[in-house]
Order: sequence, then structure tokens, then C-alpha cells
Amino acid sequence: MPRFALKIEYHGGPFAGWQRQAGQPSVQAAVEAALARLEADVPSIVAAGRTDAGVHATGQVAHADLARDWDPFRLMEALNHHLRPAPVAILTAARVDDDFHARFSATERRYLFRLIERRAPVTHDAGLVWQVRGPLDLEAMREAAAHLVGRHDFTTFRAALCQAKSPVKTLDEITIEARAIPHGREYRFHLRARSFLHNQVRSIVGTLERVGAGSWHPDEVRAALQARDRARCGPVSPPQGLYLTGVGYPQDPFG
Amino acid sequence: MPRFALKIEYHGGPFAGWQRQAGQPSVQAAVEAALARLEADVPSIVAAGRTDAGVHATGQVAHADLARDWDPFRLMEALNHHLRPAPVAILTAARVDDDFHARFSATERRYLFRLIERRAPVTHDAGLVWQVRGPLDLEAMREAAAHLVGRHDFTTFRAALCQAKSPVKTLDEITIEARAIPHGREYRFHLRARSFLHNQVRSIVGTLERVGAGSWHPDEVRAALQARDRARCGPVSPPQGLYLTGVGYPQDPFG
Repeated sequence: MPRFALKIEYHGGPFAGWQRQAGQPSVQAAVEAALARLEADVPSIVAAGRTDAGVHATGQVAHADLARDWDPFRLMEALNHHLRPAPVAILTAARVDDDFHARFSATERRYLFRLIERRAPVTHDAGLVWQVRGPLDLEAMREAAAHLVGRHDFTTFRAALCQAKSPVKTLDEITIEARAIPHGREYRFHLRARSFLHNQVRSIVGTLERVGAGSWHPDEVRAALQARDRARCGPVSPPQGLYLTGVGYPQDPFG
Repeated sequence: MPRFALKIEYHGGPFAGWQRQAGQPSVQAAVEAALARLEADVPSIVAAGRTDAGVHATGQVAHADLARDWDPFRLMEALNHHLRPAPVAILTAARVDDDFHARFSATERRYLFRLIERRAPVTHDAGLVWQVRGPLDLEAMREAAAHLVGRHDFTTFRAALCQAKSPVKTLDEITIEARAIPHGREYRFHLRARSFLHNQVRSIVGTLERVGAGSWHPDEVRAALQARDRARCGPVSPPQGLYLTGVGYPQDPFG
């Protein structure tokens, strides 16, 4: 059966997460339901990152084995037709080799976290950002973030229910951009690693926000990391600011 | 009674427009309901632009006469508290002179229209942009737009129910920015005038989109303008791409 890779964008708001769960709406189930309109036997699809409830994607990658040798463009169009009105879109599709695996072949995941600092509540961006009301110290957040880059035991920044075998991960990048918005400021956190632990990005951003707000000194983030103790983590940020923006492979399946 | 000016942001989606209408949700009624939580007698509020159903604002300006001499920051905070969870936010408030009138003192209105060209449906931007699927010719749209700048009889680009006394208006600016987005392109139309006719921006953008799509030659827009005939207008664009971004006054009430 020919294997296809799909690049997927979605609004995480209405979903209990990527992964199919009995009795709950999921992005996986939405895409599989659209595939079921095209093919008789739909195998389950596999994604690079199993995003949590409320988390968005602009560059999720999944693969599926189909009976028919679809033209990739027509497959994308047909899936988007059947996905409506769910806020899930296939951005592009490609025929890939049988040894391509959306999850196990991936060598990099990229996440964006959008944090807005403003007194007045957000309207157009509701559900798309995490909003805080007080001012944040960008340089303090950058100083704290620098302690987390590199290969570390991230037990402090890992959900209790994380299933990864090891808490040791290499965080290749955390950069924080800031830009003025009317009556406020937007911070964009860019994180990049081969793979992440469960809740790692939200644990890191929630902790860095505490540094930005002045509740934590940047050095306390290093101490919390070195403690390898989940109880030392700051509050986990809410999901709606988080976006899976891209997945890297040795060879770009859409290139 | 002290007069206050309010700068207001809103998501137009859930509203039948700015203006209060019996039995329909409106932005005006939402703001007046919040004011009614603060003051015993709430006079009706007056806005610079009476936006249509589904049209957004990031810089609407309104004024209201209140009994109490509020601290403007506290007024903003109290209104935002009572506006929740409606997607309406007071960005800032200011005490103004009694001769300030949000509508009649305004000397400039600025609008943004967001148009996205992409095959896959938008997800995060649903309800916030107008999406078309085919490619658009930016230079052709710019050439056509140039015919509309200046003082003209805009009868062609005016809704039949427009109540303005004269169809003659001076359009000070139409600029069109384009930027690549993943798997598509976003066009941002910026329009600026002392005042606009009813549906003028949406009539213009809908017509320019036809030029971009190649259905109209840029010169046909000039001919349509000169015809002063509503039947010569292109399709009126949908409301959800339109934002009232700012209102100009001889002296900035918030400055």
C-alpha cells in the first residue's frame, strides 16, 4: 500500500488533543474520518507529535497507508473537503517511501509559544495565545532560558505521566522574540529539539513567565533544573499559546 | 457630566454590528450593559464608525457621558471586567472635553482588510480573514486601486441603503501589502479617508479581488467608478476580513 505524508494545521481548541480517545473529539479521529470517506479500509494514522488538548499545530506531520495511489494534490483537496467544518487543514501531501515514519523518522520538532502581556483582554487572539496582565522582563527570561539549552536531565520540566524512557533530552534552541502590539507586548518563544518530554514546553514557558514577572530569579531556573525534581517546576502554562510549527526529517518528505 | 472617550477592540463575529438593534446582539449594547453595571443612568454611547455585522475593530472610538468623574484607568479595568466573556475590550479610556464627539469630531478613519490566498482552508484565522483559493496578481490590484485614490463620486462603491448625503468622498490611501505565509500569501489592504460610505471598503476590496483574480482589467475599475452606477460594482467582499483600526481627531484624545 502506498504511504503518504500529510502536513497538518489545526486549531486545538475543540479537541481533546491529537490522539484518538473513546468518546472525545481528537484531531486524529477527524483526519481518519475524512480518510474513511475516500478509502474503504482506513488504517490508523501516525503523527510526529501527540499534542495535548488545546494545543495547536501549523506543521504537524502524519503518515497513512492508503489502498489507492493518489495524486498527492488531489488527496489534499479531497481530505480538506471532507474535513470541513472542523478547524483542521491538510497543507500539503506527499508520496513517501515505506520506511518513512512520521514519528520515528523525525529528527527535530519545533514549537512556538505565544505569550501576550496586556491589561485589556485579547479578543481576536482569544484561544490562540496565553495572556498575562503584568509587565515581563525579557532579558531575565532570556537569561533563565539560556540555562536550559543543551543536554540535561529535564525531570523538573516533565509531566508526572510522561512515558519517555529517559528524562535526558537535548534542547537545541530557546529564543524569545518580543514585539510591541497596541497597548501591550507579544513574546514569541521558539523551542527546538530532537524530541520533547510530555509537557516540557509548557513547563518551561510557565517557569520562564515567573522569571519575567519577577517572582523567580533566573538562577533559580538553573537550580530547579539541577534538582531533577518535578516539585521544583514553575506553573505549567495553559495550552492555547502552544503551536507545533514543524517537524524535521533527514530528507524533507514535502521538499 | 464628565465625558469619556473609549478606544475599543472587538471581534465582530458574534455581533449584528456596532449599532444597538432590538433583539440582536450588538457591540454598542455590550458596552452599554457594562457601563450600566457602573452607573445608574447610562446614556447611549456614540461611536466613530458604525461597523456592520461581522466586521472587527482594533481601534474603534466611542464617547459616553458619565455621572462619576472616573479615573480613566479604573474605568477601563471595570468595563473590561463587566464585558467578559464578550470578545470586546476597552484598550484605553480618557477624560475629554464636552465638545469632543467620537463621530463628528473625527477627521480620519483607517481600515485594514485581510485577504488570504491559500488552497487549504484557514484554521486559526477562521472568521478573521477573507480566504480565496486562487492566485492573485498584486500589481494588477495596485494599478486598479490607484484609480480610486482621491476625490470621486463613489456611487458605484456605495451600498443601496447608504444614508450619506453625498456620494462624493476623498480616499486618501489604498495601499496593498503582500507577504508569504506557509502554503499561501496574505494581502493587507490599508484604506484611509476622512469618512467612508456604507460598504465602501468591502465594495472596493471585492472589486479589487476580481482584478487580482484576472476577471477584471485594472482599467475596468476606473470605468466602473466613472459610471457612478452601483450595478457596475464587483461583488462586495465578506465582512470577516475587515477591521476598523483607527480614528483620527484634530487632537488625539488618548495622547
